[in-house]
Amino acid sequence: MLSARALDGLPEVAAGDDLGELIAARVELTAGDVVVVAHKVVSKAEGRVRRLADVVAGERAIALGAACGKDPRHVQVILDETRELLRSERGVLICVTRHGFVCANAGVDTSNTAAGSDTLILLPAEPDASARALRARLRELTGVAPAVVITDSFGRAWRHGQVDVAIGVAGMVALDDWRGRTDSVGLELRATWIALADQLSSAADLARGKDSRQPVVLVRGLGHHVTEADGPGAAALLRPAAEDLFR
Amino acid sequence: MLSARALDGLPEVAAGDDLGELIAARVELTAGDVVVVAHKVVSKAEGRVRRLADVVAGERAIALGAACGKDPRHVQVILDETRELLRSERGVLICVTRHGFVCANAGVDTSNTAAGSDTLILLPAEPDASARALRARLRELTGVAPAVVITDSFGRAWRHGQVDVAIGVAGMVALDDWRGRTDSVGLELRATWIALADQLSSAADLARGKDSRQPVVLVRGLGHHVTEADGPGAAALLRPAAEDLFR
Repeated sequence: MLSARALDGLPEVAAGDDLGELIAARVELTAGDVVVVAHKVVSKAEGRVRRLADVVAGERAIALGAACGKDPRHVQVILDETRELLRSERGVLICVTRHGFVCANAGVDTSNTAAGSDTLILLPAEPDASARALRARLRELTGVAPAVVITDSFGRAWRHGQVDVAIGVAGMVALDDWRGRTDSVGLELRATWIALADQLSSAADLARGKDSRQPVVLVRGLGHHVTEADGPGAAALLRPAAEDLFR
Repeated sequence: MLSARALDGLPEVAAGDDLGELIAARVELTAGDVVVVAHKVVSKAEGRVRRLADVVAGERAIALGAACGKDPRHVQVILDETRELLRSERGVLICVTRHGFVCANAGVDTSNTAAGSDTLILLPAEPDASARALRARLRELTGVAPAVVITDSFGRAWRHGQVDVAIGVAGMVALDDWRGRTDSVGLELRATWIALADQLSSAADLARGKDSRQPVVLVRGLGHHVTEADGPGAAALLRPAAEDLFR
């Protein structure tokens, strides 16, 4: 059986905070656990925030801001996080981030900042490294090395609404590859290439209250997917542009 | 807390079988439960299968089959389920199904058929109606009306691997719309438009063994999302072509 439970009582996180310690103080970890963390607290702990007051918008940001009805300084921050702008229509900037994620506004975010709405939260600079570091810290503090998944909410092509996906992973296979294996009646499996860490991110989000501060979710029942090695991370989930039919 | 548990012991399902009875015999339903069903058993129960031996491929199917290395009769069945073909490259047909779903091969499927690989399984003709009918049957048999979600595994643009998504929903809001509401510090929420039924489908899939027959998963802990009315179904998750930046 799979279970997912959000941790209560996490304080507001600021740059330099020890997220591992905050989590370890609130849960008794056991082998095979998965700790799923909304990226915002990771970004805040890593100081990955920018104040609009510190940003000077360039020409492109000013033009895009005017076209999509956004503060040009906000657009500048998005562009700073963007490797390639795929679409800019109807107030939405669909970006390929420097990490290679395709998402709205390069994952740059405003809400949930006690500091006020002039502070933008970026994605972690290297989310897989952040996941590995948090895993190592939890192992150090508790003796248990849970898998760690760092998430964000992404929109999708073709479907309404957002789902949580994995942007950083350590200690489990992000992409479960059953291709070539056969099913219970000896035929090749259909769903043979499963975005395990994305499904897990979505499952964890269901256990959260969206309007309360529950960035951390403990998932149990997936111990068979938890590995001793940190593994290739969420980078394994990125479809290279050359293989992508929809850019 | 959220929990997801796959039901064991479902027999091979054939046309005319009473899926509600098979499920009700294997689980004690309580108010607020969600029953998540992989579409294949629904399609089989509804007789939504086609034998290749009965199919005559037309010109377009023959040309596409040659180009993508598929049996032209198989391609004909895919085209029969397709409203619009978005891409046909590298052996993959990305289709808009007659329902409006965007997915590979219009959801037409081969594996897990005891009848052999010459039998193709289609998506249910009206998955939301299938979900409503199963819900009504479960209410009739047990006195409890769980939410019912029918799923399929879809690939995504930009990301590797497949995730389970909802193709039919009854008794819960498929798309949870928090737009305009505020979060715990009074700022507008970011993830305000949540594809709840898709996240639920992905969560349920994590509880399944992919190589065993566990099409039905019982999800608990989401009773606050279960509604008396059947609601608008998975149709609410479809992004109209005119609003879609990636077709």
